[in-house]
Amino acid sequence: MNYTQQQAQILVEALPYIRSYYAKTLLIKYGGAAMVDDELKRAVCQDIVLMHYVGMRPILVHGGGPEVSEVMRKQGKEPAFVNGLRVTDAETMEIVEMVLAGKTNKGIVASINHQGGKAVGLSGKDASLIVADKAASHVDLGFVGKVKEINTDILDTLAAGGFIPVISSVAIGENGESFNINADDVAGELAAKLRAEKLILMTDVPGILRDVNDTDSLVSTLTLPEARELTGSGAVSRGMIPKVEACVRAVEGGVQRAHIIDGRKPNALLMEIFTDTGIGTMITA
Amino acid sequence: MNYTQQQAQILVEALPYIRSYYAKTLLIKYGGAAMVDDELKRAVCQDIVLMHYVGMRPILVHGGGPEVSEVMRKQGKEPAFVNGLRVTDAETMEIVEMVLAGKTNKGIVASINHQGGKAVGLSGKDASLIVADKAASHVDLGFVGKVKEINTDILDTLAAGGFIPVISSVAIGENGESFNINADDVAGELAAKLRAEKLILMTDVPGILRDVNDTDSLVSTLTLPEARELTGSGAVSRGMIPKVEACVRAVEGGVQRAHIIDGRKPNALLMEIFTDTGIGTMITA
Amino acid sequence: MNYTQQQAQILVEALPYIRSYYAKTLLIKYGGAAMVDDELKRAVCQDIVLMHYVGMRPILVHGGGPEVSEVMRKQGKEPAFVNGLRVTDAETMEIVEMVLAGKTNKGIVASINHQGGKAVGLSGKDASLIVADKAASHVDLGFVGKVKEINTDILDTLAAGGFIPVISSVAIGENGESFNINADDVAGELAAKLRAEKLILMTDVPGILRDVNDTDSLVSTLTLPEARELTGSGAVSRGMIPKVEACVRAVEGGVQRAHIIDGRKPNALLMEIFTDTGIGTMITA
Amino acid sequence: MNYTQQQAQILVEALPYIRSYYAKTLLIKYGGAAMVDDELKRAVCQDIVLMHYVGMRPILVHGGGPEVSEVMRKQGKEPAFVNGLRVTDAETMEIVEMVLAGKTNKGIVASINHQGGKAVGLSGKDASLIVADKAASHVDLGFVGKVKEINTDILDTLAAGGFIPVISSVAIGENGESFNINADDVAGELAAKLRAEKLILMTDVPGILRDVNDTDSLVSTLTLPEARELTGSGAVSRGMIPKVEACVRAVEGGVQRAHIIDGRKPNALLMEIFTDTGIGTMITA
Amino acid sequence: MNYTQQQAQILVEALPYIRSYYAKTLLIKYGGAAMVDDELKRAVCQDIVLMHYVGMRPILVHGGGPEVSEVMRKQGKEPAFVNGLRVTDAETMEIVEMVLAGKTNKGIVASINHQGGKAVGLSGKDASLIVADKAASHVDLGFVGKVKEINTDILDTLAAGGFIPVISSVAIGENGESFNINADDVAGELAAKLRAEKLILMTDVPGILRDVNDTDSLVSTLTLPEARELTGSGAVSRGMIPKVEACVRAVEGGVQRAHIIDGRKPNALLMEIFTDTGIGTMITA
Amino acid sequence: MNYTQQQAQILVEALPYIRSYYAKTLLIKYGGAAMVDDELKRAVCQDIVLMHYVGMRPILVHGGGPEVSEVMRKQGKEPAFVNGLRVTDAETMEIVEMVLAGKTNKGIVASINHQGGKAVGLSGKDASLIVADKAASHVDLGFVGKVKEINTDILDTLAAGGFIPVISSVAIGENGESFNINADDVAGELAAKLRAEKLILMTDVPGILRDVNDTDSLVSTLTLPEARELTGSGAVSRGMIPKVEACVRAVEGGVQRAHIIDGRKPNALLMEIFTDTGIGTMITA
Repeated sequence: MNYTQQQAQILVEALPYIRSYYAKTLLIKYGGAAMVDDELKRAVCQDIVLMHYVGMRPILVHGGGPEVSEVMRKQGKEPAFVNGLRVTDAETMEIVEMVLAGKTNKGIVASINHQGGKAVGLSGKDASLIVADKAASHVDLGFVGKVKEINTDILDTLAAGGFIPVISSVAIGENGESFNINADDVAGELAAKLRAEKLILMTDVPGILRDVNDTDSLVSTLTLPEARELTGSGAVSRGMIPKVEACVRAVEGGVQRAHIIDGRKPNALLMEIFTDTGIGTMITA
Repeated sequence: MNYTQQQAQILVEALPYIRSYYAKTLLIKYGGAAMVDDELKRAVCQDIVLMHYVGMRPILVHGGGPEVSEVMRKQGKEPAFVNGLRVTDAETMEIVEMVLAGKTNKGIVASINHQGGKAVGLSGKDASLIVADKAASHVDLGFVGKVKEINTDILDTLAAGGFIPVISSVAIGENGESFNINADDVAGELAAKLRAEKLILMTDVPGILRDVNDTDSLVSTLTLPEARELTGSGAVSRGMIPKVEACVRAVEGGVQRAHIIDGRKPNALLMEIFTDTGIGTMITA
Repeated sequence: MNYTQQQAQILVEALPYIRSYYAKTLLIKYGGAAMVDDELKRAVCQDIVLMHYVGMRPILVHGGGPEVSEVMRKQGKEPAFVNGLRVTDAETMEIVEMVLAGKTNKGIVASINHQGGKAVGLSGKDASLIVADKAASHVDLGFVGKVKEINTDILDTLAAGGFIPVISSVAIGENGESFNINADDVAGELAAKLRAEKLILMTDVPGILRDVNDTDSLVSTLTLPEARELTGSGAVSRGMIPKVEACVRAVEGGVQRAHIIDGRKPNALLMEIFTDTGIGTMITA
Repeated sequence: MNYTQQQAQILVEALPYIRSYYAKTLLIKYGGAAMVDDELKRAVCQDIVLMHYVGMRPILVHGGGPEVSEVMRKQGKEPAFVNGLRVTDAETMEIVEMVLAGKTNKGIVASINHQGGKAVGLSGKDASLIVADKAASHVDLGFVGKVKEINTDILDTLAAGGFIPVISSVAIGENGESFNINADDVAGELAAKLRAEKLILMTDVPGILRDVNDTDSLVSTLTLPEARELTGSGAVSRGMIPKVEACVRAVEGGVQRAHIIDGRKPNALLMEIFTDTGIGTMITA
Repeated sequence: MNYTQQQAQILVEALPYIRSYYAKTLLIKYGGAAMVDDELKRAVCQDIVLMHYVGMRPILVHGGGPEVSEVMRKQGKEPAFVNGLRVTDAETMEIVEMVLAGKTNKGIVASINHQGGKAVGLSGKDASLIVADKAASHVDLGFVGKVKEINTDILDTLAAGGFIPVISSVAIGENGESFNINADDVAGELAAKLRAEKLILMTDVPGILRDVNDTDSLVSTLTLPEARELTGSGAVSRGMIPKVEACVRAVEGGVQRAHIIDGRKPNALLMEIFTDTGIGTMITA
Repeated sequence: MNYTQQQAQILVEALPYIRSYYAKTLLIKYGGAAMVDDELKRAVCQDIVLMHYVGMRPILVHGGGPEVSEVMRKQGKEPAFVNGLRVTDAETMEIVEMVLAGKTNKGIVASINHQGGKAVGLSGKDASLIVADKAASHVDLGFVGKVKEINTDILDTLAAGGFIPVISSVAIGENGESFNINADDVAGELAAKLRAEKLILMTDVPGILRDVNDTDSLVSTLTLPEARELTGSGAVSRGMIPKVEACVRAVEGGVQRAHIIDGRKPNALLMEIFTDTGIGTMITA
């Protein structure tokens, strides 16, 4: 079998997956190494374009991470975190928004469009897509919000026009103020609201590990009760908890399958979508 | 690189082709060994379903060939040919139509649908899709016709509904009578009428050969003038002439590229569509 | 009153019927003498075209009957029947399908189109319109099926395009195989599924007769309970039972009126539709 | 052949006419005896409903005639005419408009709707359908106008909703004032503007007569040049001139056929439309 | 602040009202002085055009009043009333219809269109918009009807086309006869049927007065129970009762707010709609 | 005349302007003091919402100005300009994009949405709206670009959904890189491409002044030749030149009227649009 024949063969093997996700919404939380490494970033965007052309409806949600802290430091501000949440005073919020909506978001959009897609970047302020309240917390974290309401009109309009939405995790408050919100949360809520076929969270780990030091201890599948128990029991690492919770939220809200995958692997999205076994950890009802 | 990674890689390589044929009509003349061998037939239908799902608009045209003669013999009639054209008296015409529209056509339709497509079989009589006149000939060939008019309403309606048309090469005459018409001709005319992106003729040879006995003498590309000269010069085999003429007709009518490919190779369609070099012979303006 | 005035008068009398069937689906089982006699066949097709133009939505279902046996005999096979059902081995099934979908169906389509309609022929395989299971039977009848599922997408698409569907009673099985199914059954099931305004079965008798030898014993109307009782009591002839059952099935499924009419009368369809008294036997809820 | 069979036969004979006027606009000037006699009026409205249901698009234009003079006299005003045109002072204009738009128009609308149609009455003021200028004249006729501009938006909207427009011959001037305009003129202009298939003028004569006293001298067909010559030559009666001119205007504007028919005959419209010979006089390009 | 700045300021103040009535139906009963005085009439029509352009959907209902009596007297008939209802014999009905549908209605339509709107006049006969029965009464009032059924198809069609409906209070009976109906009643019923955002009745008083002789005794708001009690208690004047009842009917039928305003004030409609306090009396659930 | 009456009066005066800009695109370059002062900013956004609700189609283009320099300084970079153009190295470009697309843009969007509009922010990267080349210059300005191509698909899609586009003046290059482009240029090009009804440039001067020190020397109107001559003659200030050129470009491209207005006046947009005299300088063909 020469290479061309092999190519044809592999396309044919992809058919059942193409068929079953046809016209389905796939909500992807893009983050971690896959957003930092240029080669990985280009590859993720290419995968998104491919998914779009074979009839799927990918929607990206992203946060910012290291870039925000970097710009803060350039401006002489030292980033501060409480329990993994960024302390967000007004000046920090301004930087968060500039970086997420003005730099990270437009970078992803440009990469998708450069590879033939038609992406449009949105923040939660656009068309009041994500409305937030101040998040409850025992220490004041400033402009850290939690999702209160999602208005999906703009997503419907973009879908009808054949555009790929790329959403930064900045929300608008009741009085027009900005809120910094967790991108995993947004992804979970949006997936539920849109009744997405899948939620896929791209992380820097292979998935949920029973033993954090042993990559062979990967948990392939979890039911909803198992996932809830796991987050309660302390058996998952601190950083993994919001991710598992986002998956739980999505599946409770009607999403068929939620996945935590390793974004450090090239073409991780395609490997998840176009194979039976998938990769990482899958949470289902 | 493990197999899953390789799969992902190959899908990514397919992206430029998927992108450039998105929402484009591809007119495929299905015939020869690919229609006789069960395994090849299943594979062609699968390729069609794949093309459909990745956003292309394949339309199939087919003739009948050996099956017609077989049924004729079962009914005690000996098939007769003049210059490769079937002598078609009224009784033969009835058999031709039964076999093409009732057996071959429905077999292709069933195979596509069984693999997840939504095919609808048509003969030239349905919605008066193909209207024919009696073909001119120095000996009377009976109900052998040539295309006079094509009414594509039904194809537009089926496209809007997301159906894959499968067309048997039987035409209707002005008085409602049936005509046996050459499937290559129909494919060429339809491709021109629909301004298809491509016409692909599936044959039992590797393409146009400079030396019919030497498969290394394959002509990869031909311009329109070269193709016309070739058919005039006697340099191509008798059986190849109507195929080259169909390609010439299509390209003259505005089709970008016409291909003569080897349908005996598994996934020949995909190999043609999803690679830069393609396979077989390509005729362009 | 001269002829022209009389014409005008009769058109005016037709108005209430035109008005009340406007945009309504009329499911017609076409069969018997009306399908054999050329003159009657032409007239039925003309009636269908008329119905179409005055705003009704006729859909035809047909079987094959004598033509199948004829082709079988030409191929040296002797037709066999058990309780009126054709024993259908693989070879017979192939002949049934060729004749119904390739000959009878296309003949009806051509006649309608020749008279100005836009008919499209379908078998149950097209767009998986009719899916069947093997029919239960105490003797093995081979590929004789019964309706399991009906997919009406293609009928909606054709209706939107202004086409008249003509459906041959061949179904597709779960594994892509062909099934020979009773056309009366198909008509009854389709009428129910589409919530047709009327089901009209064209037969070779005046309707249901209390005394099979006395055409004056015609039963004009039957309620559903009466119809059920009649088939149970043995008071109707064997051949009539599947027809009454198809009517019962349709009316149970929401069809307002089901009719068994005499297709041997010219313009029988029009006489049924455009008069108050109608012809034949009517079964209502 | 019994009556039911004869009915069916006549419906079948109507088919070619139904087919050829399908979705075509037929502009009918309704007037004369057919608007005065209750029985004829009911019949005309029924014919319109029939035409609507068999897929034609009838549009009615009407004037008023005797009713206007009658109401004027009730109000103590004596009607005055110059060359057949009503002298229309402000008070008379008010009466003309009340009678045409408030009485005659609504009477026609009610009759059509009572027989199952969906008619909507319009005057030229509605949606500024007919804009007029004061007609040039050597004596001042007051508010007698001639058509300056036609705005057919409202007719398109009503057609899309399946409504039958009934238009009274009252126009609006540039300053919002009312104008009395000749209904034949309006019908001719509207037919031209809409590129109607036919213009039919209902009159109280059999058509154009070579000898006004001899009904056998009916001219069946006229070409445009012949019609122009006829009006110039004085060979047609005074009252006939505006009618012939309206026909000429329509045919010049692209209408295929214009007819002057005898509205005193019951079902005159149907007799014109559903027969080959038609009735009255036909003017063609 | 110069005049231009003041203009801008006032437009900005109008924004909240424009926003909240965007794409909402406002049912306006037009009557009284505002329909008699030329200046007021022009102003009301201008207000309607403004409402249309800023995205609201005004629908007008009107009666006739003094014009009917005037024409009756011109024709030598003396108007007669019983309990404020016009005794309507056949001849009177004819005059009522002529005046309302042919004069008043077309006058309003012309004024709206002259100021840039696209109004279409309707009576209850058009598209059978308002079907009535004879109103019950202890003395025979002739053709006085009460609303039996409302068919809003034509209003939907006109809305889709961007037209402003102007409806005269004439209804059609089951047998095609005309009925004189109270315009307040029609407005209330239509508002309920269309689930209008508001019903506004234009009158010749400031609103509901506790003391009819004291304009300072205006009741600004009434709840449904208060309104019902008021009409029962005799505390409102005789002429006001049908108006309050129309409001009650509308609010019971789901209309948010019903208003009785003073149409003698220029731009009364705008003052009601574009201010918080509004004018006149408002009845709410 | 009390205040409410005056309000009504002014709304009525606005009608002709509302009518003439109904469904028309108004391209607004937002900048200068109106973007810095919070009160003015709120007012501009309110004006935009008003324009949207009364049926106009406003599109905003904005640059950044002082905010960019401010953030640069916070990051320890000194802004540099050559002939009024910002020297834009890679790091500066990153800041420009963050500030414009992430801060300024989202601030405008939030203000519009907070006041009831549905705004969506875009940069030239979104859906490849603005593609640029490096601008020619005798000194290397780095990533300063000029418009090469405009893709308005996304604007059509947003218009269909009723969204207000807010566009930051950042463009995408052929290789996916970012370009800093002049917002006046973008506004002029976009206005031409969209055949906008108007281009309005908001500035910090009263318009074009013959004597820069004398605000009474305002030029109210300029023809295209006059405008061209003015920029050539040196009679306008340096900063005004790109604004006049943008107007010239728009008017050459088919825009009816281009305006340079004083954004420091509250409600300047409304004063321009809703009055006959307008404000500032108007350039027409």
